[in-house]
Amino acid sequence: MGHILLYSSKLEIPIVSVKFRMQSNETVAIIGSGVVGQAWTILFARAGFNVNLFDIAEGQAQKALEHIRNDKVPLMERNGQLWDLPIETVNARIKVCLSIEETLNGVFFIQENVPEILEIKQNVFNTISLTLKALNVPEDSSIAPILSSSSSSMPASQISSQVTAFSSQCIVSHPVNPPTTIPLVEIVPSPLTSPLVVTRTMDLMKKIGQSPVLVKKEVKGFALNRLQYALLAEAFRLVEDGVCSPEDVDLVVSQGLGRRWVFMGPFQTIDMNAPGGVEDYCKRYQKAIMDIVRQQDNQRDWSDGLVSQIHLAMREKHGSVENMREQLEWRDETLMKLSKYL
Amino acid sequence: MGHILLYSSKLEIPIVSVKFRMQSNETVAIIGSGVVGQAWTILFARAGFNVNLFDIAEGQAQKALEHIRNDKVPLMERNGQLWDLPIETVNARIKVCLSIEETLNGVFFIQENVPEILEIKQNVFNTISLTLKALNVPEDSSIAPILSSSSSSMPASQISSQVTAFSSQCIVSHPVNPPTTIPLVEIVPSPLTSPLVVTRTMDLMKKIGQSPVLVKKEVKGFALNRLQYALLAEAFRLVEDGVCSPEDVDLVVSQGLGRRWVFMGPFQTIDMNAPGGVEDYCKRYQKAIMDIVRQQDNQRDWSDGLVSQIHLAMREKHGSVENMREQLEWRDETLMKLSKYL
Repeated sequence: MGHILLYSSKLEIPIVSVKFRMQSNETVAIIGSGVVGQAWTILFARAGFNVNLFDIAEGQAQKALEHIRNDKVPLMERNGQLWDLPIETVNARIKVCLSIEETLNGVFFIQENVPEILEIKQNVFNTISLTLKALNVPEDSSIAPILSSSSSSMPASQISSQVTAFSSQCIVSHPVNPPTTIPLVEIVPSPLTSPLVVTRTMDLMKKIGQSPVLVKKEVKGFALNRLQYALLAEAFRLVEDGVCSPEDVDLVVSQGLGRRWVFMGPFQTIDMNAPGGVEDYCKRYQKAIMDIVRQQDNQRDWSDGLVSQIHLAMREKHGSVENMREQLEWRDETLMKLSKYL
Repeated sequence: MGHILLYSSKLEIPIVSVKFRMQSNETVAIIGSGVVGQAWTILFARAGFNVNLFDIAEGQAQKALEHIRNDKVPLMERNGQLWDLPIETVNARIKVCLSIEETLNGVFFIQENVPEILEIKQNVFNTISLTLKALNVPEDSSIAPILSSSSSSMPASQISSQVTAFSSQCIVSHPVNPPTTIPLVEIVPSPLTSPLVVTRTMDLMKKIGQSPVLVKKEVKGFALNRLQYALLAEAFRLVEDGVCSPEDVDLVVSQGLGRRWVFMGPFQTIDMNAPGGVEDYCKRYQKAIMDIVRQQDNQRDWSDGLVSQIHLAMREKHGSVENMREQLEWRDETLMKLSKYL
């Protein structure tokens, strides 16, 4: 209903736009227009949704919009990542809103991307909840908007602990950087989140081309970072113990483990490494694996010297941090090409 | 010199063969003609080396040769993995030898691929060492052949602990399955291995298109499996603790972590996740990472129930183990295409 109010003055627009609006008459809100907010904006606009982009910092959302329109969307188009849509079609679906009321009016999904500080996130969620109340939005899970956070470390139960309404609509949808080219999204409900909200969020993520996984408990680091940190901890130990150079650890993963993991994952990889699958693999190797895993000392901290050694090896191999911008551009283009290939 | 003896009767062969022999006048020995031995055979033949293929089981090497010539080399050619060489050129470089003396005569590199049982490997290394002695091969590291093992778990110091000669020529070159499409090779010298042997082996691996990394200490599991097992242990814990389904753990890696790791490795990934590189990353996140890593309980064993749960999830998703052959074909073709792409 808010939706109709918001766009009723635009009913007599040219056919192209009418066609596009018919393609999707749904609108999402993006709160916070940094790197992650910009990526969500593009993903939703590409999939046919209207995007209301908002940022509390004056002028920031407008700057972000220009960066999206002039740089990011054209880059994706050049790399075949725009679902064969013209740049203009995607760009036209995005608009900057200047108040939180305008941003939330008529939306069915809200993605929050403010800094990773609990107080700030809680304030934003409180504001959203109060604004929706003021807009007379009903709390029914089947029609109320979903309040989703991009947090990589804070669970929805903390972020939404102070809301006075819509707590069953709150959830974490944690993307991976850069979200426009890495499809994984971790969907992490709180104990209060409605099952319908989980299903609706998973379905929406698939619709916009992402790969959602369900993280069923609010564990620290969710699933992705827990897996990443387990491997990283061993990577640091291998360097500290003088087993491998930092560059060689990277090669072990990029030229070895990563080749199978990028399309199979760790379980399917071991499933295919024994004729009888995972059970057979464990019969053959579990004892030897456990002997190694039990040795891996997870209590060891990373010393400053060790961190410096790895940092300097990266500088030697990949250049100064002054050139990080070019390195990031290279990474993102490589990821886009890989994504297109896969 | 053995090389000349062995091939002197063939000096008046047709021009094509003469040309090929001039392209490379060096010969390697492959001992053990199972899956791994076959892969090494193809890698060396593709790079222009003559391959003497040997297997202790009667008729096995001949069968392997036919499988290589009729199935594996053509498969690689179809997937653009044969360095633009005609199938026949590569196939012509491989011959089956019927005795260990014939196999080792005139070779500069020996790759052993017998079953992963210490006694068997030790016997093979003893036999190789004695045979080289009988062939009057000098022990000088700059000209003596290298005795390299494909072992994934046994260090060269154990495998060669009983040789009476050439112990400084012994080394592990551990490939990743399937070696024809995954470039990583872990080079693991023993404390007795000559530095020249390390350099020659690393250079040779690059020459045949592989990516060697130096594992400087004979730690259990070398580097690749230590990294793999650290991640696997957390993957099993995530399923046991009800955080993620096995299929979703695979997606977290294939749709998330693997996308960056397949071309950057874990250190370059974190280097680019903070504006100031690894040092900046650790300043920002090390405390939070350590909080999680310290929780990860590496003493937990995998219960039979947990193993079955993951096994059944793989069956549900990827089908019966009866169809493992087709699944392996799919994996290998996917890896070949990925390898060509990267």
